[in-house]
Amino acid sequence: MKFDLLATDPGSSARAGLLHTGHGVIETPIFMPVGTAGSVKAVHQRELEQDIQAQIILGNTYHLYLRPGLGVLEKAGGLHRFNGWSKPILTDSGGYQVYSLAANRKITPEGATFKSHIDGSKHHFTPENVMDIQRSIGADIVMAFDECTPYPCDYAYAKKSLDITHQWLKRCVDRMQSTEPKYGYGQALFPIVQGSVYKDLRERSAEFIAAQNQPGNAIGGLSVGEPHEDMYAMTSLVCAILPASKPRYLMGVGTPENILECIALGVDMFDCVMPTRNARNGMLFTADGIINIKNERWKDDLSPIDATLGGYVSSFYSKAYLRHLMINKEILGAQIATIHNLTFYLWLVKEARKKIQEGTFAAWKNDMVKRVRERR
Amino acid sequence: MKFDLLATDPGSSARAGLLHTGHGVIETPIFMPVGTAGSVKAVHQRELEQDIQAQIILGNTYHLYLRPGLGVLEKAGGLHRFNGWSKPILTDSGGYQVYSLAANRKITPEGATFKSHIDGSKHHFTPENVMDIQRSIGADIVMAFDECTPYPCDYAYAKKSLDITHQWLKRCVDRMQSTEPKYGYGQALFPIVQGSVYKDLRERSAEFIAAQNQPGNAIGGLSVGEPHEDMYAMTSLVCAILPASKPRYLMGVGTPENILECIALGVDMFDCVMPTRNARNGMLFTADGIINIKNERWKDDLSPIDATLGGYVSSFYSKAYLRHLMINKEILGAQIATIHNLTFYLWLVKEARKKIQEGTFAAWKNDMVKRVRERR
Ligand SMILES: [Zn+2]
Ligand SMILES: [Zn+2]
Repeated sequence: MKFDLLATDPGSSARAGLLHTGHGVIETPIFMPVGTAGSVKAVHQRELEQDIQAQIILGNTYHLYLRPGLGVLEKAGGLHRFNGWSKPILTDSGGYQVYSLAANRKITPEGATFKSHIDGSKHHFTPENVMDIQRSIGADIVMAFDECTPYPCDYAYAKKSLDITHQWLKRCVDRMQSTEPKYGYGQALFPIVQGSVYKDLRERSAEFIAAQNQPGNAIGGLSVGEPHEDMYAMTSLVCAILPASKPRYLMGVGTPENILECIALGVDMFDCVMPTRNARNGMLFTADGIINIKNERWKDDLSPIDATLGGYVSSFYSKAYLRHLMINKEILGAQIATIHNLTFYLWLVKEARKKIQEGTFAAWKNDMVKRVRERR
Repeated sequence: MKFDLLATDPGSSARAGLLHTGHGVIETPIFMPVGTAGSVKAVHQRELEQDIQAQIILGNTYHLYLRPGLGVLEKAGGLHRFNGWSKPILTDSGGYQVYSLAANRKITPEGATFKSHIDGSKHHFTPENVMDIQRSIGADIVMAFDECTPYPCDYAYAKKSLDITHQWLKRCVDRMQSTEPKYGYGQALFPIVQGSVYKDLRERSAEFIAAQNQPGNAIGGLSVGEPHEDMYAMTSLVCAILPASKPRYLMGVGTPENILECIALGVDMFDCVMPTRNARNGMLFTADGIINIKNERWKDDLSPIDATLGGYVSSFYSKAYLRHLMINKEILGAQIATIHNLTFYLWLVKEARKKIQEGTFAAWKNDMVKRVRERR
């Protein structure tokens, strides 16, 4: 994996780059739609590529390991072949789901034991077997197995958890170095900075993670309920330590505002369920703010959902029609809203990238942040 | 509305034709996907046109009248403008929903009073206002307001109901003749033959309906639970009376087998919720029979859903991937299965049409009926 840093904004730490993978080049900064179980909910793969213009999507190790299972994925030749998405894929390590979804979990320095949320069956994740699972899934970017601390989290727990995360990281790195990809293309490991909202822990973690000298680095444990100021402070601190020559991925972030602010702090990659999950509830993101499309106000507004994005779906369907579908709980409503929101998120990072390359990002960002957070 | 009868099969009563409407030409025999509330569930309008190659879709007067309501539809300039489907639309009269969905219904010779299944609000349908509502929706083909008898239905009730249906038809015809289309294109009224499974009632009804001399004719009250033999016997009887120079629409039918058999009896148009509703439960129709895609058997079958259809979705996604999506209740599963089933139904009638034009329909039909009804 190779990262070309093409431009840095003079007024902020924002960067524009190119990330080369075995499934093509990703233009950064980038937003990655979440496809938990191998499907970005309510979106066809063709729509992801052609309408939304996604360049990379996420899969989740915990979900894919349980269903369809590694046997099916290996027989298919990996997730790309299984779901028909031929551009890059990043897989989450599954640690977060073990903590948030699974039952009867027990964490020891060795790994995590848990019961499936689907059928109660017992499973064991270790840094080693989570790397092996991600080899079987065939992600282009593989995430380290870590513990994502909740918020709030007391200092003693955060420190102890960080030590485990760092020990596990060593084992992840060793495993990746001693095993080969299964499908003929490279797989890059991204270690994850943790440390909750504690400056000294975050600094220590960022230094430790940077020292692993992996192809990219991630920041985890944020956007879990802490104030935005903490999120931005920790991101800023960590970005200053992580090497500029490698992509930085801020996990699970966030609103359009969060993304713009964190691009300004030097982040290159984002993912979040917000555009997809909120779409299914009728919340639309636009360049002029946030819309609840179920609102009576849109009942007979026959104007396009958002003609400025240039996407087919957002230009073709009207607000009144989308409202009608959402009110009637028609599946097509979720489909349209999801495509719209993802089209907007991808449009937003593409615009940001243009502004960075033009050297005008900082001023544009300050204006844009005000616009995107408005409630209409 | 003009109907060109292009060919009649030498070995059956099957016909191939062209039905000209204000929104384009329909090749018959045709299957019409059901878009109850202005959306064919889980399918984008673009997919309906380009992938499924639908030529006409259904809307439902009862549902559209309640939501979004006539105000919104009129402001949009009709349903085509509201939902973005620019090919022909047929609207069901709403009678069936008044009987099956609405509460507190009361039928008098004047019309039907009922309460909305959504909010309990009180409404009144008459032959006259149902024609007016369909004028506001702007369907290319408008169905008469009738009573669809249940099955079983005793002779006395069927006879009494038929008399009301015929009286209402007169009022529908009068209303259509004394009003103008609202959006500048023609709207054709199709009267509906009723009479349950009683030969004499069906004959009398078919003669009465034919005498109205409308641009097309429909057969209702079948596929409501009666044995297939009754469905075929009544259809055959009625088709022999309805004029050959006008399209015949068999409402609510049916399985692929039913459709092939009824094409052979002289039916030109079909609609049914089966391909869409059953898709959402994992039942797939193919040229080689019926599949329950949730079955363990398809778990690692990486072959395309159905490559013979030539449709993108059925060729692109594998059975194993679709099974995985259905088992995980992913929305994309319903989307893929629906597009597949509708693509198959449209493929089936297109193949039938080709065979009719080649004069080889009867033999092909006998073979095909055996194939499509098999359970795999
Ligand atoms: Zn998030
Ligand atoms: Zn049916």
